[in-house]
Amino acid sequence: MTTAAIIGGGVIGGGWAARFLLNGWDVRVFDPDPEAERKIGEVLANARRSLPGLSDVPLPPEGKLSFHADLGDAVAGAAWIQESVPERLDLKLKVYRSIQEACDPQAILGSSTSGFKPSELQEGALRPGQIVVTHPFNPVYLLPLIELVTTPENSPEMIERAKEIMRGLGQFPLHVRKEIDAHIADRFLEAVWREALWLVKDGIATTEEIDEAIRMGFGIRWAQMGLFETYRVAGGEAGMKHFMAQFGPCLSWPWTKLMDVPEFTDELVDLIAGQSDAQSGHHTIRELERIRDNNLVGMMRALKAQNWGAGAVLNTHDAARKPRALPNLETADLSQPILTLSRAVPLDWTDYNGHMTESKYLEAFANSTDRFMEIIGCDADYIANGGSYFTAETHIRHLDETHAGARIRVETQMLLGQGKKLHLFHRMYEGDTLLATGESFLLHVSLETRKPCAPSPAIEAAMARITQAQAGLPYPEGAGSAIRKPA
Amino acid sequence: MTTAAIIGGGVIGGGWAARFLLNGWDVRVFDPDPEAERKIGEVLANARRSLPGLSDVPLPPEGKLSFHADLGDAVAGAAWIQESVPERLDLKLKVYRSIQEACDPQAILGSSTSGFKPSELQEGALRPGQIVVTHPFNPVYLLPLIELVTTPENSPEMIERAKEIMRGLGQFPLHVRKEIDAHIADRFLEAVWREALWLVKDGIATTEEIDEAIRMGFGIRWAQMGLFETYRVAGGEAGMKHFMAQFGPCLSWPWTKLMDVPEFTDELVDLIAGQSDAQSGHHTIRELERIRDNNLVGMMRALKAQNWGAGAVLNTHDAARKPRALPNLETADLSQPILTLSRAVPLDWTDYNGHMTESKYLEAFANSTDRFMEIIGCDADYIANGGSYFTAETHIRHLDETHAGARIRVETQMLLGQGKKLHLFHRMYEGDTLLATGESFLLHVSLETRKPCAPSPAIEAAMARITQAQAGLPYPEGAGSAIRKPA
Repeated sequence: MTTAAIIGGGVIGGGWAARFLLNGWDVRVFDPDPEAERKIGEVLANARRSLPGLSDVPLPPEGKLSFHADLGDAVAGAAWIQESVPERLDLKLKVYRSIQEACDPQAILGSSTSGFKPSELQEGALRPGQIVVTHPFNPVYLLPLIELVTTPENSPEMIERAKEIMRGLGQFPLHVRKEIDAHIADRFLEAVWREALWLVKDGIATTEEIDEAIRMGFGIRWAQMGLFETYRVAGGEAGMKHFMAQFGPCLSWPWTKLMDVPEFTDELVDLIAGQSDAQSGHHTIRELERIRDNNLVGMMRALKAQNWGAGAVLNTHDAARKPRALPNLETADLSQPILTLSRAVPLDWTDYNGHMTESKYLEAFANSTDRFMEIIGCDADYIANGGSYFTAETHIRHLDETHAGARIRVETQMLLGQGKKLHLFHRMYEGDTLLATGESFLLHVSLETRKPCAPSPAIEAAMARITQAQAGLPYPEGAGSAIRKPA
Repeated sequence: MTTAAIIGGGVIGGGWAARFLLNGWDVRVFDPDPEAERKIGEVLANARRSLPGLSDVPLPPEGKLSFHADLGDAVAGAAWIQESVPERLDLKLKVYRSIQEACDPQAILGSSTSGFKPSELQEGALRPGQIVVTHPFNPVYLLPLIELVTTPENSPEMIERAKEIMRGLGQFPLHVRKEIDAHIADRFLEAVWREALWLVKDGIATTEEIDEAIRMGFGIRWAQMGLFETYRVAGGEAGMKHFMAQFGPCLSWPWTKLMDVPEFTDELVDLIAGQSDAQSGHHTIRELERIRDNNLVGMMRALKAQNWGAGAVLNTHDAARKPRALPNLETADLSQPILTLSRAVPLDWTDYNGHMTESKYLEAFANSTDRFMEIIGCDADYIANGGSYFTAETHIRHLDETHAGARIRVETQMLLGQGKKLHLFHRMYEGDTLLATGESFLLHVSLETRKPCAPSPAIEAAMARITQAQAGLPYPEGAGSAIRKPA
């Protein structure tokens, strides 16, 4: 089992620990803070309720988490060492010396630093090429971006290995090839932060008004397209050059005092803190973290459905794991109901009480049907070529409740698969508990005529195999159910 | 019927036209561009496919759209006049003179300007107090933010009226009380734009890398929480002051050359245009607009489910319209199936072919069931007090297809409503076409024990009224259906 070492906890180190742990790595933590275990535990709790449900395919079983009083113990044998200690160069350099005396020379040593360039971190190091910047964004267990900042000291092999590991964690490594203070994203945040401080100081807007100006407008846009793509689209038919022709001249206007930094007096700090309390104080920080994660999961899953941006990153991560997570025609024991779904219940499938809502049962069964279709050969390519299955009728029996984060699975029995007809019986479980059954009758159709027609010979053959293999299975309890007419 | 006048079309004027038209206003357009009608038509097409589905309650019937060769004709009788002509002060002032000579003195005259302060627009006007800045964000028919910038010339009454109108359009008016160049949001965009141009010019990052740095990280965060709230949460237990104590000192670092503006040479323009083509050129602008709108709708509906940010704005807009859109116990003709759902099919309910997907039929029926529960008294307050209905069994018959944007409705017949039992039959229509039926058997439960129990007397009484009223309705075709056991 691969091991990651987390040097320095808190929100960022804890986020990395969660990301590794939930992706099946063992995680060894070193942090002299006596509160480290509690703080990391809280980040982990947030991650466990939100991250697994982002995937439509199960994450691997969690790794083992351990805390170590000795830094050498923590890093011994780790393939990845993530440093997230306070932003002081002398401290980081000292920590790297200790790390490199004890770790595998092949391990990747990433720093979460937002403030230092990798060349500064590599200065005087035992093995400079081992050290890179891997700068994450809070919450680290949800947001995919990692700014991977390298120097010529880092070998191409090591860089590629780092990217692969991060992709395996469901992250999006952005290679920043020319190091610069604050990398890329924080330079934008810094620019906005300065402008925002001026607006607050000059009484133009409160913290709340500034935040609404962001999240009710361009903030929503930026969750799916960045600055340049947004402007390209806005440039309309005439395109990017047209947009820049219109926008370009504005850059000269004396719009901003951005180079001046407002003095960070106690007065200004109090003003901001007071406005922030008025804006957000009715929720605790823990509540805001959960609200934030609920929102992020909902929006990222919306982007999954569109296969765009962060959603596309998630789909790619799922696709890489799917072959091992779900059986196909060759690997399944066809004599038994076939596993067609295995996942954590995502946050946006549940009501405010955390219970999975009614309509999501059908969404889960529809996903199971889609998987069964894939198994018999009606996959994305087949559908793109004009054939598919339409559901004619569905019957769902709700038997028990489940919650956000629960690991559910669906096992599917084929009651009939012949010619145009496909009749499936799905059973949804959590552990040994039968949560619901879903029975579906489908017809194979031509996507062009929208009318029933015979499936391909390959699909017929697959269905014949399953028919034969499942012939011994009893007719399921609950199949053929009707909602009885009231007396 | 209230009328809005759109002076100047294009992406922004067309977006305003769409926003007004789809909310039931008549819209009169004046734009000397011979292509105005075509361009506005394209924006309207994008709006029609995306905006109605954002609402779970139908928008009013569309208003009438007309194009006028004479500005005076366009503004006569309009309650709102939105100016979106090119960003030249002399042109805008000339246009306002013509508008104010012909319009209702009580009409609100909003400018979409991103560049001018309202005092500049009011200078020398016939009625300065009639003019405000109402600055929107593209796409205007989807993003809720309007920066409403006023001066002391604008009366409190007029300002309140403007806000009410905008809320009625589903917008979020942000009152910018102290005018400043570029208002609020564009100052942030300007700051980021400059920094981004430097990064491209200096070869630190391409347009694509910059965009990924935004949309894979803080961009997703900003769709739901702005700068200050995000930092408050990041400050963790210690809160905002702690965060600022850590972050504050960074402001002095020489991180940015932001005050300097890179020279906008042909070379730089070509560099950007070329990188933008490489990044986004595989989609046409029209395709990118549709992708963008699909993404925005998906994410905004995800925020609706969380009742947060832009999603909360949408829910409030729906709630205001719901009483008139759907009947209740007093206003319904109880002798007939009751209208429990009426909406446009949203973009995120459909597959890549634009057809409504299977699992969304149950979502629609579940919404219908929720509405029926509300009608008989099991509303949000009742549920908060510990009673609700759980669905035990559901049977859905899929009869016909429908598409994004289609106006669908559900009419619900109560087959049994007595004691703990509730047995509903929903019929989903598009026009006269029966799309699907959904039969549900529910049990009234205690949310505390999670077990069936008798509903309140008020609910019993409501069900008794409906039982009596609907006694004459025939038992529905398709009720009591089962999926037949294969021979």
